[in-house]
Amino acid sequence: MTRIAIIGAGPSGMAQLRAFQSAKAKGLKVPEIVCFEKQNDWGGLWNYTWRTGIDAHGEPVHGSMYRYLWSNGPKEVLEFADYSFDEHFQKPIASYPPRAVLWDYIKGRAEKAQVKDQVRFNTAVKGVSFDAEGKLFTVTLADYANQRHYTEQFDYVVVASGHFSTPNVPEYPGFDRFNGRILHAHDFRDAVEFKGKSILLVGSSYSAEDIGSQCYKYGAKQIYSCYRSKAMGYRWPKNWTEKHQLLRVDEEHAYFADGSKAKIDAIILCTGYKHHFPYMAEDLRLVTHNCLYPQGLYQGVMWQDNPQLFYLGMQDQWYTFNMFDAQAWYVRDIILGHITVPAAAQRAEHIQQWHEKEQTLESAEQMVRFQGEYIRQLIAATDYPSFDIDAVNKIFMQWKKDKQDNIMNFRNKVYRSAITGKMAKPHHTPWLYALDDSLQSYLADNPQREAM
Amino acid sequence: MTRIAIIGAGPSGMAQLRAFQSAKAKGLKVPEIVCFEKQNDWGGLWNYTWRTGIDAHGEPVHGSMYRYLWSNGPKEVLEFADYSFDEHFQKPIASYPPRAVLWDYIKGRAEKAQVKDQVRFNTAVKGVSFDAEGKLFTVTLADYANQRHYTEQFDYVVVASGHFSTPNVPEYPGFDRFNGRILHAHDFRDAVEFKGKSILLVGSSYSAEDIGSQCYKYGAKQIYSCYRSKAMGYRWPKNWTEKHQLLRVDEEHAYFADGSKAKIDAIILCTGYKHHFPYMAEDLRLVTHNCLYPQGLYQGVMWQDNPQLFYLGMQDQWYTFNMFDAQAWYVRDIILGHITVPAAAQRAEHIQQWHEKEQTLESAEQMVRFQGEYIRQLIAATDYPSFDIDAVNKIFMQWKKDKQDNIMNFRNKVYRSAITGKMAKPHHTPWLYALDDSLQSYLADNPQREAM
Repeated sequence: MTRIAIIGAGPSGMAQLRAFQSAKAKGLKVPEIVCFEKQNDWGGLWNYTWRTGIDAHGEPVHGSMYRYLWSNGPKEVLEFADYSFDEHFQKPIASYPPRAVLWDYIKGRAEKAQVKDQVRFNTAVKGVSFDAEGKLFTVTLADYANQRHYTEQFDYVVVASGHFSTPNVPEYPGFDRFNGRILHAHDFRDAVEFKGKSILLVGSSYSAEDIGSQCYKYGAKQIYSCYRSKAMGYRWPKNWTEKHQLLRVDEEHAYFADGSKAKIDAIILCTGYKHHFPYMAEDLRLVTHNCLYPQGLYQGVMWQDNPQLFYLGMQDQWYTFNMFDAQAWYVRDIILGHITVPAAAQRAEHIQQWHEKEQTLESAEQMVRFQGEYIRQLIAATDYPSFDIDAVNKIFMQWKKDKQDNIMNFRNKVYRSAITGKMAKPHHTPWLYALDDSLQSYLADNPQREAM
Repeated sequence: MTRIAIIGAGPSGMAQLRAFQSAKAKGLKVPEIVCFEKQNDWGGLWNYTWRTGIDAHGEPVHGSMYRYLWSNGPKEVLEFADYSFDEHFQKPIASYPPRAVLWDYIKGRAEKAQVKDQVRFNTAVKGVSFDAEGKLFTVTLADYANQRHYTEQFDYVVVASGHFSTPNVPEYPGFDRFNGRILHAHDFRDAVEFKGKSILLVGSSYSAEDIGSQCYKYGAKQIYSCYRSKAMGYRWPKNWTEKHQLLRVDEEHAYFADGSKAKIDAIILCTGYKHHFPYMAEDLRLVTHNCLYPQGLYQGVMWQDNPQLFYLGMQDQWYTFNMFDAQAWYVRDIILGHITVPAAAQRAEHIQQWHEKEQTLESAEQMVRFQGEYIRQLIAATDYPSFDIDAVNKIFMQWKKDKQDNIMNFRNKVYRSAITGKMAKPHHTPWLYALDDSLQSYLADNPQREAM
């Protein structure tokens, strides 16, 4: 029987499981699927862990999720087309749910699909190689619960292990004598640790913007962020200052390119992540920076040099959960033979066209539209429910504008679902004052009364 | 030509390099040696890094070293028999040197031996397997500088990668909602981070004792340590309280088995390390807890199932640098054929005898003597300079007593070298007040004047 290995049971891996289950529910015959997950539950980054650095099994901690994280984009841009928020929560909720709420949502669809028995938890993939003669992958596995290593063979491999787990950690002069904690965003967990402190955020992308906002919300005394090329430029609170490039630090201070300095207690490196697949044999390993159309992946998913290998979600992500869906359905239909894959030369040409188009993009709006277009054509090739991509693109633009208007207020905005056509319901408490990020608190109709 | 791979250029790997160089200097023909080191310099843990968690190459950080670490045992119990502290520093120094001084010392011998060109830095061992037919090891390597993977073959492999790099990280109820940093000792770097804070140390061995002492020295407000079986029982400062077993935590408090609780700002897990060799094929991988005579290693070094494989320094360590030396010289002489190894059955019996003897040990003194005896017989089989093991055993006992007398004062004591017969010279500043742990400050004859 044909066998498929899925590496990782996060949003992408769960989408792949759901894609096959959806086909099976329609009466199609599907291959045997085994999904390997090194954590003890599914959800990937959304499965919060307090651990940092090395996990209980001597492996790098996968999670980069922090407490108090609320979605930094509206839920309406990531909604599953086959499972709306309204269906899951049975009532309207607001547009920027906290982590626990989003985790509950993605688990809800997978639980409904009854695919959990296809996941081997506490099992890390330690190696993937391909035998060109037998046309089979050998996957080497570490089973933590039973302390054993073993191998299995598969016809297809779908890599769905994400690209926000291996931090990119630069060094600046003086780091070896700085008198405080230096951490990468990957190891950030609880903003309360920085209450009353002056922190320096190195970087000017989503991690810096959001971790700084969390620290502000939970009482940091002073926030500095610094950029190499361009300031974030939001209307920051009074105790948040954007600085030019960091040059060096000493025991207590950071020194910037404009000649200024600042006294700081901690440094948080918001310097991004690496696409890192140490378990893949070198000839199967995706090497890319974070971009909208990684080279070497036909339709953004199929490994150009081996049509039995796929990568999900390896793009720079405007779209997320629904893009993973579009990809997972597309991969499924290649494997099931419903999509005819052109020859290598045509595939290469197709990749090159998209790659060249990406190079011409200049504005955020162009990038969003590019990714929307990519998703649109994936969906057109499968039975994944189509949805109004143009409407979602517009939500992205409104979101950008709402952030520009007030970075500390945009999470109070609500948007209309492109799936159900319904408006979200404003949250009971403004984001800045909603310190309890639990599912229970978020879903409560009257949090004051529920707390009594 | 016969080829030997040494994994790791820390104290054990450096001892192995020196052992072969010593033979070569005496006119013996020695095999080709390649030492692989994933860090950018040698010294292992003694090569301090500010990094925690994941390093610049996506690999777990090797270092567990922290700033302000001073040796927690007298230098007289770890002195190389072939290279004294007096020879290196050309003057007497005190008995408990800080990290930079000890690093300088171990580098000094290796530099004198001119063996650095045998080390491939920035090169991580990713796999070691053995071909029983060809009787060769295949070692898979990741060369970070050139971003390439490659393999080489070796007749012998010496694993010298240490066992203080992979943290053992237990979980306690409430860790997922505690409002502060939770870290393992492995990730502890700068005690100043905890100035003015209340910290909880989980554990009652060397890490808890020393990290707590560092935090006290650098201004922690309150220190709690907790134990499962037995309190450390030192005469702690007034703001250090030993507690019974930790049961759970909430946002701000720790709750102990005796019913008491404490308000804390941070939790440091001083819960030990794992012997962790993920790159070794399963049939070559040492699996042991931390003990004086690990099972499966003949003479504590030779892999029982494959006499071409060796492990250095895998013991629970009273003796350190000089034990690694004794082992490295012994391994060298097995490889050179100067030591005849008995048949497997005799080796197994020998291991069993030592293992059984270890089970009878009850006191620290018995354990020290046991390890001293082990070293004595290794040295007797090679040309490593013999030294007065009984005298060193006595220093260990005096050290234990000095700690018992005053845990905040023992580092001001001095001892007599078993190598040179000379007394150490008291340090210019008591440990508790010596906040600058640099080599320069430590070696200054008059630190006040030098600072001017």
